Amino acid sequence: MNFDPSHSKRSFSSVGTRPIRPDGVDKVTGRARYGADFNMPGQLVGRILRSPHAHAIIRKIDTTKAAQLPGVKAVLTAADLPDLTNGDAAMYDILDNCMARKKALYDGHAVAAVAAIDARTAKQALKLIEVEYELLPHVTDVDQAFAPDAPLINDTIFTTGVDPKPDRPSNVSMRSQFGHGDVDAGMARADFVVERTFKTEQTHQGYIEPHACVASVSSDGTADLWVCTQGHFVYRQHCAQLLGMDVSKLRVTSSEIGGGFGGKTHVWAEPVALALSRKAGRPVKLVMTRDEVFRASGPTSATSIDVKIGALKDGTIIAADATLRYSCGPYAGAWAEVGAMTAFACYKLENVRTVGYEVLVNRPKTAAYRAPSAPMAAFAVESAIDELAKKVGMDPVDFRIRNAAQEGTNASYGPIYGPIGIGPTLEAVKDHPHMKAPLGKNQGRGMACGFWFNFGGQTCTDLNIGMDGTVSLAVGTVDVGGSRASLSLVAAEELGIDYSQVRAVIADTSSLGYNDMTDGSRGTFSSSMATISAARNAIKILRERAAQMWDIPVEDVTWENGHAVAKGETHGNLPKLSLKEIAAASGTTGGPIAGHSEIVADGAGVSFATHICDIEVDPETGATKVLRYTVVQDAGKAVHPTYVEGQYQGGAAQGIGWALNEEYIYGKDGRLQNAGFLDYRIPVCSDLPMIDTQILEIPNPNHPYGVRGVGETSIVPPLAAVANAVSNAVGVRMLHIPMSPPRILAALDA
Amino acid sequence: MNFDPSHSKRSFSSVGTRPIRPDGVDKVTGRARYGADFNMPGQLVGRILRSPHAHAIIRKIDTTKAAQLPGVKAVLTAADLPDLTNGDAAMYDILDNCMARKKALYDGHAVAAVAAIDARTAKQALKLIEVEYELLPHVTDVDQAFAPDAPLINDTIFTTGVDPKPDRPSNVSMRSQFGHGDVDAGMARADFVVERTFKTEQTHQGYIEPHACVASVSSDGTADLWVCTQGHFVYRQHCAQLLGMDVSKLRVTSSEIGGGFGGKTHVWAEPVALALSRKAGRPVKLVMTRDEVFRASGPTSATSIDVKIGALKDGTIIAADATLRYSCGPYAGAWAEVGAMTAFACYKLENVRTVGYEVLVNRPKTAAYRAPSAPMAAFAVESAIDELAKKVGMDPVDFRIRNAAQEGTNASYGPIYGPIGIGPTLEAVKDHPHMKAPLGKNQGRGMACGFWFNFGGQTCTDLNIGMDGTVSLAVGTVDVGGSRASLSLVAAEELGIDYSQVRAVIADTSSLGYNDMTDGSRGTFSSSMATISAARNAIKILRERAAQMWDIPVEDVTWENGHAVAKGETHGNLPKLSLKEIAAASGTTGGPIAGHSEIVADGAGVSFATHICDIEVDPETGATKVLRYTVVQDAGKAVHPTYVEGQYQGGAAQGIGWALNEEYIYGKDGRLQNAGFLDYRIPVCSDLPMIDTQILEIPNPNHPYGVRGVGETSIVPPLAAVANAVSNAVGVRMLHIPMSPPRILAALDA
Repeated sequence: MNFDPSHSKRSFSSVGTRPIRPDGVDKVTGRARYGADFNMPGQLVGRILRSPHAHAIIRKIDTTKAAQLPGVKAVLTAADLPDLTNGDAAMYDILDNCMARKKALYDGHAVAAVAAIDARTAKQALKLIEVEYELLPHVTDVDQAFAPDAPLINDTIFTTGVDPKPDRPSNVSMRSQFGHGDVDAGMARADFVVERTFKTEQTHQGYIEPHACVASVSSDGTADLWVCTQGHFVYRQHCAQLLGMDVSKLRVTSSEIGGGFGGKTHVWAEPVALALSRKAGRPVKLVMTRDEVFRASGPTSATSIDVKIGALKDGTIIAADATLRYSCGPYAGAWAEVGAMTAFACYKLENVRTVGYEVLVNRPKTAAYRAPSAPMAAFAVESAIDELAKKVGMDPVDFRIRNAAQEGTNASYGPIYGPIGIGPTLEAVKDHPHMKAPLGKNQGRGMACGFWFNFGGQTCTDLNIGMDGTVSLAVGTVDVGGSRASLSLVAAEELGIDYSQVRAVIADTSSLGYNDMTDGSRGTFSSSMATISAARNAIKILRERAAQMWDIPVEDVTWENGHAVAKGETHGNLPKLSLKEIAAASGTTGGPIAGHSEIVADGAGVSFATHICDIEVDPETGATKVLRYTVVQDAGKAVHPTYVEGQYQGGAAQGIGWALNEEYIYGKDGRLQNAGFLDYRIPVCSDLPMIDTQILEIPNPNHPYGVRGVGETSIVPPLAAVANAVSNAVGVRMLHIPMSPPRILAALDA
Repeated sequence: MNFDPSHSKRSFSSVGTRPIRPDGVDKVTGRARYGADFNMPGQLVGRILRSPHAHAIIRKIDTTKAAQLPGVKAVLTAADLPDLTNGDAAMYDILDNCMARKKALYDGHAVAAVAAIDARTAKQALKLIEVEYELLPHVTDVDQAFAPDAPLINDTIFTTGVDPKPDRPSNVSMRSQFGHGDVDAGMARADFVVERTFKTEQTHQGYIEPHACVASVSSDGTADLWVCTQGHFVYRQHCAQLLGMDVSKLRVTSSEIGGGFGGKTHVWAEPVALALSRKAGRPVKLVMTRDEVFRASGPTSATSIDVKIGALKDGTIIAADATLRYSCGPYAGAWAEVGAMTAFACYKLENVRTVGYEVLVNRPKTAAYRAPSAPMAAFAVESAIDELAKKVGMDPVDFRIRNAAQEGTNASYGPIYGPIGIGPTLEAVKDHPHMKAPLGKNQGRGMACGFWFNFGGQTCTDLNIGMDGTVSLAVGTVDVGGSRASLSLVAAEELGIDYSQVRAVIADTSSLGYNDMTDGSRGTFSSSMATISAARNAIKILRERAAQMWDIPVEDVTWENGHAVAKGETHGNLPKLSLKEIAAASGTTGGPIAGHSEIVADGAGVSFATHICDIEVDPETGATKVLRYTVVQDAGKAVHPTYVEGQYQGGAAQGIGWALNEEYIYGKDGRLQNAGFLDYRIPVCSDLPMIDTQILEIPNPNHPYGVRGVGETSIVPPLAAVANAVSNAVGVRMLHIPMSPPRILAALDA
């Protein structure tokens, strides 16, 4: 797309306003239909049997008794699914994770499933399935799994990214390295060096809505899937591949989504529901329990990270080095590489090196969690930076400003930055009243920076103009955070009509071209690009129709503020035709008016944030209380500022929970001990203050309105900001997240 | 669209084959979701209170007690709906028909509605609504209503189409006239004249699925409607207008349809369900009972028709005259005009005149029924033609062949015909073994011709190519007779891929541009034009992508048999890229590949059929038995011959029922006496022989594949063909349809 680069000078009519979100009323009144709010006549209840063992060979599965139970319509094991052993390894892993074929690889791994006439029968049937396991030694800790003598989880995995190629299998599936300069030489020149090892525990995205779907496979091979997902087109693609179907034969409709944050970017129960439906010949509804969501969806990596940073006396960071180990569950393919890329992305560094390792463990296959892998890296780096600033004797904000990346900086992960917002967020934080507010006893303040790439990807939009001039906008990026509002604003802006005249819907996979997931903060970025393009295509037709109505050449018609305007008229009364007038005539001027767009939304703008956190620690109990929290982040252009603020607040809240309390606790038996919200503690309203936000707008030159993604960056700084605050409050450097009361007490004791 | 006119010479790969229909399995296994097969969480049950009176002023409606009944969430009367009295008269009529405002105009007219937590409560609530009626004289017979002294149904209606303009209101809402030449002079020259008056009774389309919908209006003004309809875009338009909503705010999804035949082209309960939902603040499901369908949906017109035709000794029809009175229910707007246009459309006539009258009666507002108004006109004309042939002493087929319209004929209703099929169908019938088969005692053979215009209209299609090369075709014309199969064939044909690689779906109103109804036999005609156009647009992109992959100019790439082919290569191995290969690369060559089309599908080709019927009449009881039935019809090009045959058979079966048994029977009290399938007798399987069909293909030059509509013409000849057969069997000219046993006995007695 060739966009007008004059966006930074333009003024907006709709974009930047804060209208009511279109899905809001339905959500607060309970009318919105989520994954479990759909039913088909004759549907069965699907349930999944899960391994209680962390690592075990599946010797035998006897489903005879279960299949004979009256009311059971289908029993499924991996034997009923295509064997992709010799196919695409990534697809094999996805399928094996949905239904274990040879080994159960973690507590909660699916081994069989049933479809029955009701939940009671389905539950009873699960109990009748006999599985013969041969237990194997397991490993759930990232450092233990990294050790050469660790129990081997997958003997087909040989570490990639190392030279020479290894001759024996390993739990380390991948090594990746980024950087430039001479780190060792730089470090030798340093006047001050901080070297630390950090650890973070595995967390879950904690979305309120469990995975849920209704699958219906007809005996002619066509199928329908209603599902809660962040990307119904990707679910379609994966389910079709896993089940051996043509993609177009599967129609996927996305429900409203009760949170995803990366955890609904992978298929889990959906291929199982489809396979059950295909076997039973009836629709199957499958809703995961909370226990299943914790044990068997996709939490984050646990990590172990070494950081070494050296600075000159004047405060210049002269060398930066990090080694990052990310657990990835029992299959290859975590986000260690991404963690290694983001670690030092905020800084302008002469000598920098990051090495990422992806480590297999007997835990659920990890999924993305809002800026996947970046928060842990930022925790380690920003903690070390804070310590280094102290050593140098500089204010932590000034120290970061001195070393902040700028337009033209060669980023630590490779590219040269365009206009970026790390400097402005730091300057804004420096000037923020929050930084100058007094602190009391046992209170500490921390700040930290964060970076995220953002993503563009494949995107399609259909814009249809009704005969009354109101607009239907069909988009394919699932609305996880208000994008129906933001995209309606963009359509209204481009067409020159009022926001109320546009209704955006998420089209099903049979009604629109392929769209990548709503991930990488791409929803509004990419779909707004596609919407602008579609609107411009529609305007072209509107101009043609106006020209036809006036009987003048289309070149003589321009589009201004929702009207076709005839050029070159010298007399006072310029003829004008409103979009409404042209739409009303459309039936007689050539038919319905539409604009379409299929694009790869290149040019996502990187995004930076700086957060400030005040915390009070009870030295008796180790309990923490977040007193004040401020997010400053670059949005490029905030299309709907209220939802941008909501993203900032949501990311910060999740990061605070991660920093302070959330963690997967595995027993020595390799079983998850806290698979529920009573024992896995996410912050609730009463745990948090109102989170203040400040939106900066450094336009992304690759987007016609300057938009950058805003959804993920806000979870990157909190782990570090909170850790710096706690460290300042207790006077001890906190190296292990979450900083739960026992860990704080232990740190105080040490 | 500029189409290649060489269609008649081209050979087809997919078009003309008979693959399994995509909706077939779901329909026969009960999985298909019809209007009542949808539910929303928290939905209420809607029910409608209907007038027991044919004509009555509504003095007062007291809903107090009903509203107070526990479980009742909304009670609705016309007072809750916008008052369109001073607006668009047609819209006022539609709304008034949905919910009577001042007068109940027929037995079954809706006067109030409730939404309650269950059916029992809703039913009880209806009983608690007190309506005070002031009875008025009523009239249900078309001839009685036509009389000057008839009870006046609507005092705002003055006959249009007459000169001078009338000075007092009338039950005759419209007069229309067609023809050319000097009929009176022609008639004076005739050697033989037949003059007859015919009568047909009101019938219902008899679709198996009653009207059903689920409506959900959110308090922010957006709404969703799941509904069984022939045109969800038109329903959206009408419902939005009637409720004062923006069109784009209402998303309508069409269910599978269990028959419509014109009866599901109008809104009935849908605006009521939406208004109830808006008032109750919850979704409302409204399913009409069979009794309600008969009493208060849209049956056909009853008619009374005078025909006078004169012929010369040589068999040339020298003059033709008809006056046709069509009942239209209590509102203006029947299809009398259409009846007058079709009456003599099969013939080449020097002097012809038809006059149509639209007559108000206290019966339900009529709707279209498959070639609306044409079957009754054909009954009258083809009966008279048969009688005239006898008088002239010619075989009825030869007599018709002599007078058949041809390419270049000035049609009785105005236009000059292009290539048409009336002659060929007559020739085929003449040569058909059926015409030569012997007849037994009490058996008669009849034949008759029929004509229908067909229609094009506004049509949109989105064609999306998945990354595996399979195709999603989103169309907006509801599939009433297999159009998903025919349109998939067309997409496959144009793209050069296999039929199995295409899945067609009916998109909802928010995901596609506006589409006119599936009526006028336009489904496959118009949507195939749009599909071809969309496919050609996609091929343009496929060629561009191939050019990009080859790094050659797009002008050097052609599209042949599902492959991009590079031009101008002289060596043996021409480079080729399949659609699948180009699709697989699409993510890296510019994103998803699609083709879109928004058109007014001009150029529908007129269609003709000739039917043959053998019948046996039991002279003791008047009972009839159809022994053999043959349909010969021009399809232009049969895209999916099996469904074309199905249309031919379905139309014939319905016409036979109409001819022999079906009729609305009103008592003197103005109440419908047979509102159910026990008393309103449609033909069942055991009533009919296998109906033979013969497809002729006289290409429509305005369609790239030569397609004409095929769905309606087949119901035009049966009334006459059966009547001619019965008349021949009993030796008495049958003038009144249906020819039920009592009427046949009466005719034999007379």
